[in-house]
Amino acid sequence: MTEVAETAVQTPAPAALRGRRGRRPVDVADLVARAREGEARAVARLISLVEDASPALREVAAALAPYTGHAQVIGLTGSPGVGKSTTTTALVRAYRGAGRRVGVLAVDPSSPFSGGALLGDRVRMQDHAGDSGVYIRSMASRGHLGGLAWATPQALRVLDAAGCDVVLIETVGVGQSELEIASLADTTLVLLAPGMGDGIQAAKAGILEVADAFVVNKADRDGADQTVRDLRYMLSLGGRHETAGAWRPPICRTVAARDTDNGIDTVLEAVEEHRRWLESSGEGHRRRVQRAAREIEAIALAGLRERMGDVRGSAALGALADAVVAGGTDPFGAADQLVAQL
Amino acid sequence: MTEVAETAVQTPAPAALRGRRGRRPVDVADLVARAREGEARAVARLISLVEDASPALREVAAALAPYTGHAQVIGLTGSPGVGKSTTTTALVRAYRGAGRRVGVLAVDPSSPFSGGALLGDRVRMQDHAGDSGVYIRSMASRGHLGGLAWATPQALRVLDAAGCDVVLIETVGVGQSELEIASLADTTLVLLAPGMGDGIQAAKAGILEVADAFVVNKADRDGADQTVRDLRYMLSLGGRHETAGAWRPPICRTVAARDTDNGIDTVLEAVEEHRRWLESSGEGHRRRVQRAAREIEAIALAGLRERMGDVRGSAALGALADAVVAGGTDPFGAADQLVAQL
Repeated sequence: MTEVAETAVQTPAPAALRGRRGRRPVDVADLVARAREGEARAVARLISLVEDASPALREVAAALAPYTGHAQVIGLTGSPGVGKSTTTTALVRAYRGAGRRVGVLAVDPSSPFSGGALLGDRVRMQDHAGDSGVYIRSMASRGHLGGLAWATPQALRVLDAAGCDVVLIETVGVGQSELEIASLADTTLVLLAPGMGDGIQAAKAGILEVADAFVVNKADRDGADQTVRDLRYMLSLGGRHETAGAWRPPICRTVAARDTDNGIDTVLEAVEEHRRWLESSGEGHRRRVQRAAREIEAIALAGLRERMGDVRGSAALGALADAVVAGGTDPFGAADQLVAQL
Repeated sequence: MTEVAETAVQTPAPAALRGRRGRRPVDVADLVARAREGEARAVARLISLVEDASPALREVAAALAPYTGHAQVIGLTGSPGVGKSTTTTALVRAYRGAGRRVGVLAVDPSSPFSGGALLGDRVRMQDHAGDSGVYIRSMASRGHLGGLAWATPQALRVLDAAGCDVVLIETVGVGQSELEIASLADTTLVLLAPGMGDGIQAAKAGILEVADAFVVNKADRDGADQTVRDLRYMLSLGGRHETAGAWRPPICRTVAARDTDNGIDTVLEAVEEHRRWLESSGEGHRRRVQRAAREIEAIALAGLRERMGDVRGSAALGALADAVVAGGTDPFGAADQLVAQL
């Protein structure tokens, strides 16, 4: 199943939660059946329904629920320029070579206003156009607070239910987004490249905490050894991995570029080893339950935010904001009034 | 007023909203009076009170309200390694040279689990230790969703009320964090450096939408001209700046390093010109009202999230998450049940 990625998919307007917008009626059961048979158009439609402001949203979610929990979810994150897209492409190629069905969610939280994912996607898409075992989808937050936290798990559920064996979630770090991805993924790969910043920058990026494995890409460049040494040193400083039975994130070296996949096999091995550890340690189940809890919480908060939107629509929030700007009230008092009006 | 930045200040546990934790009683009126006289310890204490889980939180917010709205807020964002810290230092030096009181909030959303701001701060602090007109504070989210969205405006209010003429908010882009900073700042500076990624990466980063001015730092390096050309080209593609009277983000070139501030004067001019435009166009007031609205909403949501935490404490969310993982219910149904229990 293949689909040209939609650039800048709209994250759900909170109105989606109550299904206000009119749309042509959807035969959800039929769509889910066709998606499970691998029909790309059905998958695309389902993702649109859960992401976009669809009245069928809840029906879709309920129909998908029995079929989820199969996919292995792999997150990829790293600063701009480290080679996330090429590494994702290399992983897709490798998993396709092993006969597995692959979904890719390219999450771009950095462009909430416009189609920032456009160029990157066009570059990436060319490799797998025509392969019926790959489904690639771009998502860009439109600035709704919590937009991607809300939409990404839903898109993931569609790909999972549609029978993807592996779902790769690619996002540009650094920031809150990489945490959201880490909270979604079974295994999180943090990509680095030589010369992209020294040890201080790496520590700033907070990458040590989220990584299940490190991928030093562009490992043929000067400075790759130093980057690996810096990583090892920083890992030795943290206490997280010292507990007996704890997972120690391996460091892989790759040269993932347009035509070479050097080192991708070591990444695949690291992911597989981590998968086994997730199962044997019980951490895998724990992560899935935690993921579900966050998803539930995100949906609940989006619903509450929607009600605030109604309040805002009635100009109450605007009046409260004016009072805060004028110094007449403080934001806590204003928040109390806002919640009281829910 | 000077204070050695506290590394990894804890963002408010939602419990802060109801002031559960016991602490020694605080004379808020006295603290606010002393902060307004420029006493660094009082400023530090107030920021801790609003950030941390203090029972006095609401009292502090109410006491600050009449004194806010004076500070000019300048946001700095950019990828790791572009020179945000050195540029911030150079701006502090320049504003101090002009006799203005300066506050700096170094926001580090990328390290929610540990003191990721540690090294960067130690590097930066040395320049201004001993200057009583500079107040520098580090903040690192501890992983509470919305933690920095909640805490940063509160710290900003303290610095504003304490008489800072200029508050610089520095954050590592790329991601949601830069949007939050842009939503807080009167003027947002987006920093770039040559060789940090090509045009596609810049477009991905979504920087065009949030920048009020661009700063191409390390402008003495190869590729600086190309970076400026790329920026100009991308700006020419966007439609945002074509409206009559719209602000066109200037592009400044700097070589901000430990001992040189080349080009910082052009940045100061750009900021000043933007300030005049904000006033003449009415956009400045509009931004401040919008900022207050977001702040109110963030506080209200934190309060609602706290109530969910109570529900979670009673294991209800855990049971719902288990049911979702088992496929027995979908996350929307679970969210309905969660909200019903609030």
